[in-house]
Amino acid sequence: MIGWLKGDVQHRDQKGSRNLVLIACGGVGYDVQLIERDWQAVSTDQRHEFWIHQVVSADNLQLFGFLQLAERDLFRELIQVSGVGPQAGLALLNACAYKELVTALVHSDLKTLCRAKGVGKRTAERLALELRTRLTDSVASTGPERNQLDPVAPDLIATLETLGFETHEIRDALQRLNGMGGPQDGDDDDAWLRACIKLMSSTDP
Amino acid sequence: MIGWLKGDVQHRDQKGSRNLVLIACGGVGYDVQLIERDWQAVSTDQRHEFWIHQVVSADNLQLFGFLQLAERDLFRELIQVSGVGPQAGLALLNACAYKELVTALVHSDLKTLCRAKGVGKRTAERLALELRTRLTDSVASTGPERNQLDPVAPDLIATLETLGFETHEIRDALQRLNGMGGPQDGDDDDAWLRACIKLMSSTDP
Amino acid sequence: MIGWLKGDVQHRDQKGSRNLVLIACGGVGYDVQLIERDWQAVSTDQRHEFWIHQVVSADNLQLFGFLQLAERDLFRELIQVSGVGPQAGLALLNACAYKELVTALVHSDLKTLCRAKGVGKRTAERLALELRTRLTDSVASTGPERNQLDPVAPDLIATLETLGFETHEIRDALQRLNGMGGPQDGDDDDAWLRACIKLMSSTDP
Amino acid sequence: MIGWLKGDVQHRDQKGSRNLVLIACGGVGYDVQLIERDWQAVSTDQRHEFWIHQVVSADNLQLFGFLQLAERDLFRELIQVSGVGPQAGLALLNACAYKELVTALVHSDLKTLCRAKGVGKRTAERLALELRTRLTDSVASTGPERNQLDPVAPDLIATLETLGFETHEIRDALQRLNGMGGPQDGDDDDAWLRACIKLMSSTDP
Repeated sequence: MIGWLKGDVQHRDQKGSRNLVLIACGGVGYDVQLIERDWQAVSTDQRHEFWIHQVVSADNLQLFGFLQLAERDLFRELIQVSGVGPQAGLALLNACAYKELVTALVHSDLKTLCRAKGVGKRTAERLALELRTRLTDSVASTGPERNQLDPVAPDLIATLETLGFETHEIRDALQRLNGMGGPQDGDDDDAWLRACIKLMSSTDP
Repeated sequence: MIGWLKGDVQHRDQKGSRNLVLIACGGVGYDVQLIERDWQAVSTDQRHEFWIHQVVSADNLQLFGFLQLAERDLFRELIQVSGVGPQAGLALLNACAYKELVTALVHSDLKTLCRAKGVGKRTAERLALELRTRLTDSVASTGPERNQLDPVAPDLIATLETLGFETHEIRDALQRLNGMGGPQDGDDDDAWLRACIKLMSSTDP
Repeated sequence: MIGWLKGDVQHRDQKGSRNLVLIACGGVGYDVQLIERDWQAVSTDQRHEFWIHQVVSADNLQLFGFLQLAERDLFRELIQVSGVGPQAGLALLNACAYKELVTALVHSDLKTLCRAKGVGKRTAERLALELRTRLTDSVASTGPERNQLDPVAPDLIATLETLGFETHEIRDALQRLNGMGGPQDGDDDDAWLRACIKLMSSTDP
Repeated sequence: MIGWLKGDVQHRDQKGSRNLVLIACGGVGYDVQLIERDWQAVSTDQRHEFWIHQVVSADNLQLFGFLQLAERDLFRELIQVSGVGPQAGLALLNACAYKELVTALVHSDLKTLCRAKGVGKRTAERLALELRTRLTDSVASTGPERNQLDPVAPDLIATLETLGFETHEIRDALQRLNGMGGPQDGDDDDAWLRACIKLMSSTDP
């Protein structure tokens, strides 16, 4: 129901491994749990916007907040995987930067996924299995504002932009990939997507 | 509990067949699912009013929004029919314009009802059976602001107005129906209502 | 959780015997069910204050609103009686004016209680049995702002004020009762309370 | 979900042993239960800020409010102990001042804990057992804004500040304790913490 909050960070707190803020919207303050890097990035008495995921259960109403929309949407995908609750979802986003996590999921890089607290090998496998397809499909078919501008492989570019890659990075990778005769393991969208990500991840600073 | 929201559309998104917006009211943003035509009609950063239906369950709080009050009220009737959940309710409203759907329900037009994704023949029959009476009763007995002005068959006119027909359309139909000696299958309110709808639907552009 | 709403009545509607309003507070509109006399007393696009009782269940969040605090508090007492849900509570308040209902409960006047839709003899008996004591106790021991001013029987006066009687009415009744040598059936608080209510109810216009 | 409310106290009421206020934030009024000393400290039509704990269950949404953040956080710890619900948590905070309650928990002072309505010997033992460690751990490891200023035993000082002791009080106690050759029962953090609390509690006016 609640998908976004904009207000003053009234209070910051850490309970065990949980990073908590209280966001005051009008006269109502909401307890929200953040990922570590977002918690470090916000300061009290400053106005911030968070993309929210609300978890409803019989005895609790919890809010999880993200400064980046893409990370909130990825969090929503992660916790749909059986055995992955909100805390494991946050642990995954705490253990890796956004692009690194997406790359690990798309490439079934279990070692990276297992860096997250509470994520063992079996959960990592299920994550990679379920999310690799869903992430690619959901990202490919329903990117929010389709990028109609670019004549070259618009869907592929839109998909990679939604994954957080910069447009210029994507174009360079596409050019180099074309120069190399395209992906080695096939010519469908999936193959181009994987090859582009691999190329951009290997050249990341 | 929540029946209406007025705010800026902060974000538009499509997840599979679901049309989603985030409506910011004060500092709180609400995730709301719309029907396709409403989703196409709204744009980000513009202020819109939605009539809302809130669905509460043990593990979820969902909001469904409608630009037209009559469509929100019809949606509420649709999902009271056993076997028809919110997604099937939206599918019915996506498959037909409002008047077309009401006409199909009042005339047990199963073919039209089955155009909706996830609505099979049996559900269509149950919809027609349960809603035809309820829709007519609930609309006939409790139209929100009774139209006291019109001397001729006020309740019938108010009922048809609430179903979305224009007053001038209704008056023409009544006159032609009177000219034809009234409805063929009886003289009670129900017969007049059905005959009027049939006449106005057959002459619709 | 929600105990009060102040906003514009955005929409009035009647669904069967239910009297509904939509109250817009900021950008959020709340569906609230009222008793008939309050529904008649409010008009759209006007600002009103309602004392609210929120009912939470696994599949619903409902709000019941009252223009008078005393009626909301009485409603809360009524629905604590086993077998009396919100609709029966509203039916009781619809069937009787506030003072009449309190008098009927304090005097176990089953005939009056059974006027309410959905309240049979057995429920009326349980209401009178449970509420007569609780109403008198809860009213006698915890009246919100104790009336410290009046030297004569302050608790009795405060109790009767909380039941909705005017101070001047109460003083007249007390004087006449003193003139008649006090209540016939005893001299404890309960007897004085019953005798006063009887006296004031018999002389009501 | 809701962790703080700021608004006008619209209404004060007492129902049995429960101290209730209605806090109006914008057009929405929230029913909140307070501890006795806070209820006495607030007056109607004045703006107050409350730290809130929200309790969600299948048939209820309750809000408990505290003028002091430390008391809300201690309340949250109390009600995590099995057998201690919100009413017993409030009873504990009603029976003792904040420091007195913390001291009783850290020193397993069952007599003081049993002063609270509804808290028997067994619950008092469980409270002392579970909370003494958790209170000390949670307070020692995650005090909200670590006090980086003080060169001398910063964690100990921050812990005692979070327990509500004044900085000057803590420094005096540390100096006297150093003068006495440190705590008698060991030299770890726990021993210093207990000894300081004992010293400051015995010298309290």
